[in-house]
Amino acid sequence: MQTIFHVDELEKWGLALGNAENMLAYCEESGEAVKIELLANGIAVRALSAEGSDAALLQRMAALAEKGVVFAACRNALRAQQIEPEALAPFAVTVPAGVVELAQKQQAGYAYIRP
Amino acid sequence: MQTIFHVDELEKWGLALGNAENMLAYCEESGEAVKIELLANGIAVRALSAEGSDAALLQRMAALAEKGVVFAACRNALRAQQIEPEALAPFAVTVPAGVVELAQKQQAGYAYIRP
Amino acid sequence: MQTIFHVDELEKWGLALGNAENMLAYCEESGEAVKIELLANGIAVRALSAEGSDAALLQRMAALAEKGVVFAACRNALRAQQIEPEALAPFAVTVPAGVVELAQKQQAGYAYIRP
Repeated sequence: MQTIFHVDELEKWGLALGNAENMLAYCEESGEAVKIELLANGIAVRALSAEGSDAALLQRMAALAEKGVVFAACRNALRAQQIEPEALAPFAVTVPAGVVELAQKQQAGYAYIRP
Repeated sequence: MQTIFHVDELEKWGLALGNAENMLAYCEESGEAVKIELLANGIAVRALSAEGSDAALLQRMAALAEKGVVFAACRNALRAQQIEPEALAPFAVTVPAGVVELAQKQQAGYAYIRP
Repeated sequence: MQTIFHVDELEKWGLALGNAENMLAYCEESGEAVKIELLANGIAVRALSAEGSDAALLQRMAALAEKGVVFAACRNALRAQQIEPEALAPFAVTVPAGVVELAQKQQAGYAYIRP
């Protein structure tokens, strides 16, 4: 099971993290291999900022990242939000364009979920 | 045509039911075979509760269910909303994890639409 | 890269146009062939009305349309919003049912993105 979650609203992070936690728990229990990516663009990249974000969210993200969940931030969005890539939480990676990442992952067989 | 609609906000039910009605009408007219599932997770599962929901919505859902549309509620979300599966409208079914259902259906060739 | 963007909220047009602009810029730079469609249903079709819409939005849309981006409006939604197809901006096309278009494009290999 390969899934990319699309987060472009700040207030959807709680829901999106819950979605990823549920998918991970299901796959751990059933023994199914799983790849999960959370792709942030628009204003939602702010939540991946190491300092500007909510500590409780960052903790849940870090726990997911330790289990292999990928957190990717769109570089166009980072520029628009004036966030330097170096200011992101250590577990976050960047991609050149969030929408391109969403399209490429779907074309590679990932399911798309928009919480 | 196989499609899964993802509903995770209560206020999106009206739009989602209209989407399903339009798809069904189109396929009835064109003679195309169609499979439609509406998957509810998050707070949106409340609308599938037989008592706690809006009577007009439930009536539209029941009419769609009679035509073969599947209404599925995420059991993780039901637990979080403290709704017993038995309290759901009679046409609703449950799935262990809504996001897993969304991923599996896409991998089985369903289109994904998020109203 | 083939992608269909789904817009069913008026306030999402700015984000959706930015998404399309970013995808186009990425593909122009990398030389990758790209097909982009923005499919409007629900209340979002209003933004495609030549007169009833926001001039700045229409200008951004027209610039994208000149580069080959398709703007499609759902005829069910146009009826519900009492907009005649003739009242749409000249670059817009109509489809019988927006959700059918979304499903058919996905089945033809398009990625789906819901800003």
